Amino acid sequence: MDEHDYRVGILGATGAVGQTFIRLLDDHPWFTVTSVAASERSAGRPYREAANWLSGQPIPPSVASLEVQSTEPEAMDCDVVFSALDSSVAGEIEEAFARAGVPVVSNAKNYRQHDRVPLLIPEVNPGHLALIDEQSWGDGGFIVTNPNCSTTGLICGLHPLMDAFDLEAVQVTMLQALSGAGYPGVPSLDAVGNVIPHIGGEEEKLATEPRKILGTLDGDRIEPAALTLSAQCTRVPVRNGHLACASVRFRDDIEAEAVADALRTFRAPAVTESLPSRPDPFVQVLDAPDAPQPQRHVEAGGGMTVSVGRVQDCPVNDVKFVLLSHNTVRGAAGGALLNAELLASEGYLDRARADAATEPAAG
Amino acid sequence: MDEHDYRVGILGATGAVGQTFIRLLDDHPWFTVTSVAASERSAGRPYREAANWLSGQPIPPSVASLEVQSTEPEAMDCDVVFSALDSSVAGEIEEAFARAGVPVVSNAKNYRQHDRVPLLIPEVNPGHLALIDEQSWGDGGFIVTNPNCSTTGLICGLHPLMDAFDLEAVQVTMLQALSGAGYPGVPSLDAVGNVIPHIGGEEEKLATEPRKILGTLDGDRIEPAALTLSAQCTRVPVRNGHLACASVRFRDDIEAEAVADALRTFRAPAVTESLPSRPDPFVQVLDAPDAPQPQRHVEAGGGMTVSVGRVQDCPVNDVKFVLLSHNTVRGAAGGALLNAELLASEGYLDRARADAATEPAAG
Amino acid sequence: MDEHDYRVGILGATGAVGQTFIRLLDDHPWFTVTSVAASERSAGRPYREAANWLSGQPIPPSVASLEVQSTEPEAMDCDVVFSALDSSVAGEIEEAFARAGVPVVSNAKNYRQHDRVPLLIPEVNPGHLALIDEQSWGDGGFIVTNPNCSTTGLICGLHPLMDAFDLEAVQVTMLQALSGAGYPGVPSLDAVGNVIPHIGGEEEKLATEPRKILGTLDGDRIEPAALTLSAQCTRVPVRNGHLACASVRFRDDIEAEAVADALRTFRAPAVTESLPSRPDPFVQVLDAPDAPQPQRHVEAGGGMTVSVGRVQDCPVNDVKFVLLSHNTVRGAAGGALLNAELLASEGYLDRARADAATEPAAG
Amino acid sequence: MDEHDYRVGILGATGAVGQTFIRLLDDHPWFTVTSVAASERSAGRPYREAANWLSGQPIPPSVASLEVQSTEPEAMDCDVVFSALDSSVAGEIEEAFARAGVPVVSNAKNYRQHDRVPLLIPEVNPGHLALIDEQSWGDGGFIVTNPNCSTTGLICGLHPLMDAFDLEAVQVTMLQALSGAGYPGVPSLDAVGNVIPHIGGEEEKLATEPRKILGTLDGDRIEPAALTLSAQCTRVPVRNGHLACASVRFRDDIEAEAVADALRTFRAPAVTESLPSRPDPFVQVLDAPDAPQPQRHVEAGGGMTVSVGRVQDCPVNDVKFVLLSHNTVRGAAGGALLNAELLASEGYLDRARADAATEPAAG
Repeated sequence: MDEHDYRVGILGATGAVGQTFIRLLDDHPWFTVTSVAASERSAGRPYREAANWLSGQPIPPSVASLEVQSTEPEAMDCDVVFSALDSSVAGEIEEAFARAGVPVVSNAKNYRQHDRVPLLIPEVNPGHLALIDEQSWGDGGFIVTNPNCSTTGLICGLHPLMDAFDLEAVQVTMLQALSGAGYPGVPSLDAVGNVIPHIGGEEEKLATEPRKILGTLDGDRIEPAALTLSAQCTRVPVRNGHLACASVRFRDDIEAEAVADALRTFRAPAVTESLPSRPDPFVQVLDAPDAPQPQRHVEAGGGMTVSVGRVQDCPVNDVKFVLLSHNTVRGAAGGALLNAELLASEGYLDRARADAATEPAAG
Repeated sequence: MDEHDYRVGILGATGAVGQTFIRLLDDHPWFTVTSVAASERSAGRPYREAANWLSGQPIPPSVASLEVQSTEPEAMDCDVVFSALDSSVAGEIEEAFARAGVPVVSNAKNYRQHDRVPLLIPEVNPGHLALIDEQSWGDGGFIVTNPNCSTTGLICGLHPLMDAFDLEAVQVTMLQALSGAGYPGVPSLDAVGNVIPHIGGEEEKLATEPRKILGTLDGDRIEPAALTLSAQCTRVPVRNGHLACASVRFRDDIEAEAVADALRTFRAPAVTESLPSRPDPFVQVLDAPDAPQPQRHVEAGGGMTVSVGRVQDCPVNDVKFVLLSHNTVRGAAGGALLNAELLASEGYLDRARADAATEPAAG
Repeated sequence: MDEHDYRVGILGATGAVGQTFIRLLDDHPWFTVTSVAASERSAGRPYREAANWLSGQPIPPSVASLEVQSTEPEAMDCDVVFSALDSSVAGEIEEAFARAGVPVVSNAKNYRQHDRVPLLIPEVNPGHLALIDEQSWGDGGFIVTNPNCSTTGLICGLHPLMDAFDLEAVQVTMLQALSGAGYPGVPSLDAVGNVIPHIGGEEEKLATEPRKILGTLDGDRIEPAALTLSAQCTRVPVRNGHLACASVRFRDDIEAEAVADALRTFRAPAVTESLPSRPDPFVQVLDAPDAPQPQRHVEAGGGMTVSVGRVQDCPVNDVKFVLLSHNTVRGAAGGALLNAELLASEGYLDRARADAATEPAAG
Repeated sequence: MDEHDYRVGILGATGAVGQTFIRLLDDHPWFTVTSVAASERSAGRPYREAANWLSGQPIPPSVASLEVQSTEPEAMDCDVVFSALDSSVAGEIEEAFARAGVPVVSNAKNYRQHDRVPLLIPEVNPGHLALIDEQSWGDGGFIVTNPNCSTTGLICGLHPLMDAFDLEAVQVTMLQALSGAGYPGVPSLDAVGNVIPHIGGEEEKLATEPRKILGTLDGDRIEPAALTLSAQCTRVPVRNGHLACASVRFRDDIEAEAVADALRTFRAPAVTESLPSRPDPFVQVLDAPDAPQPQRHVEAGGGMTVSVGRVQDCPVNDVKFVLLSHNTVRGAAGGALLNAELLASEGYLDRARADAATEPAAG
């Protein structure tokens, strides 16, 4: 067996994020989907019948014929699970897999604020992986999470600025896509020709998650970053792509040109270089006066590159800009996949597999 | 003849704003549309044929049968003109009417920054009307303007705050409706399922117009308000209703509850009380967590009431809120109509009529 | 008490159709909403809190403060009920009201095909009211229904043609609005930028309901019309307004001009003349090459006038045209209201009230 | 030089169809874009600056740096040109290229009804290519056209039925995408939340083009097919994908199941088998009750496969079904590209190149 050849299970495989995992994992060089699991309603049926497949691309044939399993460790024989579970059930199920010795790469929010669980963006805080060693579910299992979809994109733009300057505060208005609410999600009568200036829990996540991600690992804990972030979140009738209109304040004297340069010249850490899903560039800076736009730029880098435009001096704070990221790729399934690739590349998946081989089987 | 009974001409009557003037003036107690004018292409044809009528309501029959005139003072026999002209021609034509002794109530941008021309919102700066006396086109004619559509709504929300507190700065993201770009305006391929983070000239207008409107009349000039405003303007696929996500900073220590109270308790100046198009309330504060929304609240007060919701403390500035206003009513034709009503109520239209009667006819 | 002064109860008052009833009944000259009822979840709460009010207009204050009742005859003291109930519960509840002596004017589908229940459009088949006398729920109660939203509009256009000519067959493609699916209805990810070529049960209703409505009352039963109708129903991202692209075949030799004339000259039966919600005209024929359009014409006649355009000869059948009707007004609450007005005007409500007064109370 | 290695010029390269040509020709095994031409306004500028690039994918770098040429034969050194010209100029320019000995593969409508010009869909009427030998522009140049975007998709579904049965008449309602109108095309205020039941010239094209395409080559002319087609064309707020709701009548007795079978078992002519852009399958039949949908199925086969669903017996005609095709790929640039591939495969491009080499140069 090649070093990077892992059997992957998908938890919550029939939902919108689960489907995106399956789409992105099709023909992946390191990962093969070998089992899919969903709620009792779907279990026992072939995936092609259980899933209301939303994408314009067909279901990868190797997955279409899989029988949907129940979300229990003993039902899934795999080296790592990707969790696309709803937060109402993710907490318990993910813990069960971790206790059974299975690495869990989760898109759910349940463990994002857990002291020992990395809230990971490989290009931003790969060092936070060390927290895994502090987890103690038993059997070598562990949990890694990626941030909320709106947080991820914004952080991708803010990290190069924190790296280069002393960032103090961020005021942001989010224009978020419909796919961020999952399926069925937002009723069409609320969406067509409308904007809803409220997304439950979103402004709170944007106030807290960035401070952990951008924080400093200090022994066995993360020291949150000294960054104040205030967000107003709206839902707009766009399918994919969260747009952030941000205005940032520095503790030093920084102008628009310096911000654009910092974004253009930022290089992701070397540890991410060999990851198959790593975008290049990490952030692209667009000069057109009307960029970025969801319809034109959301698929940049296969949905993994974040686009920034309209970088201008701001008379109220210091610099303002507009940032676009793909909420279901970079901000969800693609981000989680990149996390799994980092785990593989850094040996965490092999170590878990070795532990599992030497321990009595779970269940 | 009753004191308030004026013959109205519409300049640029076939365009989107011109049509809205005609719709709002239907059955108006003080004003009767007696002539309509447009470019040479339309002149000479009945209005019903010349206009590509956009509204779901039929053309008022008395206007439908009017012959479209050319945009020249001698072609239009009326007591006041409303200008919905494109800015490429408004400057010259409006001046010609003013010189011919006709009061011009303009929605165009050409004279908004002119030293002697009021940039008027009746509930906000009625005192600026006094500038009219400083105008000297001859013959009693004058020009009054209303602000840009995005500025108007925002100012309606900011004025009560300036009235009550010491407002220092405003950071705002605008989510602007398609009708703000007129017709044909934004191509549908750019609009459907998309957001465009750029509207030509809009961010500049938002940086300058509020300072004049909220400024203080000092003799024969306006002292601009000491307010810093930074805007990011986006176009969203909504028909009507500009949504502003604003965050404001005060020089004093103000919290969300005080802001909501100031908005709720603000009373428009007494001088506006008898105006037929005056909304009540001027600003409504909504408590629902997902309000205001264009689809649900844009028609409040016949499109003249501004709606504010989601008033919250802001960790970066002081208080943030979401504001909605009807861009083609409050922000364009309805605002201009209210200006004309104030001019009538304060005697400016009668005075111009009297001047015109005693002077040799224009042209 | 005036002859036409009735206390109205709304069953299913919190849903989308219930809300439309309340909006249309505001300031109605004959009817006053005195009680509102909904499912157990809402019962006991003030209407303003129980309803997720969808319209841009505020809730009529007299209704906003009503306490929501349970859907039982004894809980509602009124002269007639309008039913906006979901079909999953409408059958039993409507029967209970009829048995308790209450006239039920229903928008639900449950009794539409019942032998003794009129499927009523006042301008089309007012004579079918006589079926009421054949109903025997006891106590003077009865049930009257209006057709499905897509059927109603189409029938309004077909009836004048059946009246004038010998209509044989209709091929129609329906482009139906989102509001036809109620709230929450269609998920936005299925609606935005998409068409769904399927609406459950709709093609079947269009094949059967018209034959009953356009049928002939023969003693105590309806002889279905000898008309073949084939429909393909699609959902399009429009808020209100079902558009029908129809092609019709006659047994005689009829051309487009004759069809347009028949539509233009049709006069609704005299029995409808005094009804407050009766539109004038019943059908309008538009000559513009791009009419009718939902955005421009759906509100014609307050949503009660049906618009027809693009009347052309058809090389496959005889004549083709495009028809637009307001699905939640003409096709639902407005249609039911017009039915209730006909019942009042023809004495059916008074008779039921008299019966109820002389019989022992229900329940 | 390899047999299939051609230098391609794009006429009208900066418009929407021109851009799609460039996108589809990127990495093509047989064709290389070596020159791009557009109107005088663009000529002389690098393509990346001249084009308002609409796609989410970047401009292929080899094209981005090309200098835009004027649309004259002497300005473009290539073996074949693809014409995405507007019909207002296509007639003259295409003729000039043909006279200069250049094969013209045109998407414009100007020569579609020309007696000697094939209106070509390779899977449907490859034999019509023989008409080329009857063209006499001189120098070996010739013109081949593909049908209108709405015609193409429909014909792909009708041809297998004509092949298997005796098709007499087709009644169809088209729900056409915004991209069919080009850019800027439909104003957003007409598109968002609306349907426009009129597309200029479209119903006429659908009445005439199919009869030529499905016609029989008889010596040096096409005998039109004895097929009656009646269309109602509407514009819906969808980006890509024309949906046809069709009802067909046969001269023999055919039911839905037979139609579905004929579509499923149809095999494209052998002459198309080696063409790189040929889709497999040509037509896919979908069983889901709500298929096909633009959002889910328009990209099938890279936009070249046509999707059919909801095949049902029709009480008015014989069988009805819903058909979806990609209007800018299968119905425009992709269809033209497939035509060019057939021309290459059948030796027409080599022959023209040989003729050009032996004749004195044009111009």
